[in-house]
Amino acid sequence: MESQKLNKHYRDDERLHKIGDKIRFYRTVKGLTQAELAQECGDKDWSQISRMERGLVNFTVSYLFLLAKILDVPVEKFLED
Amino acid sequence: MESQKLNKHYRDDERLHKIGDKIRFYRTVKGLTQAELAQECGDKDWSQISRMERGLVNFTVSYLFLLAKILDVPVEKFLED
Repeated sequence: MESQKLNKHYRDDERLHKIGDKIRFYRTVKGLTQAELAQECGDKDWSQISRMERGLVNFTVSYLFLLAKILDVPVEKFLED
Repeated sequence: MESQKLNKHYRDDERLHKIGDKIRFYRTVKGLTQAELAQECGDKDWSQISRMERGLVNFTVSYLFLLAKILDVPVEKFLED
């Protein structure tokens, strides 16, 4: 396997965009605005959610679990192709 | 839903420990040492993998996809309870 030669700053932009689309989908299903979801996540800055939904934030696995819990969605749903 | 009052530095240590156990499991199934997996991930420092396996690193979703690709495991497997 050719080494990825990437380190922990590794970004998978394609995946981040797909996850972002799913965050937007499940947020709207839940009937939350970006500001409301940000607040639930403890983020004062609603634009954090906006950036995430556009695949611009390489957020942590812990944060993904937090989103899944707040949006009442199994975390695996965010990772489906 | 009582706001989590946590922000993007949010850590889910319980989950991180569970994921760490799975990284160790699938790494050993693949027959890689921590140093070999670290190298495949582009990390010069094998202790990064050691810390991850002990649930001490709140790594990114992109890095989780990288681990899944290198260990030939569907990413969902790392998130199962």
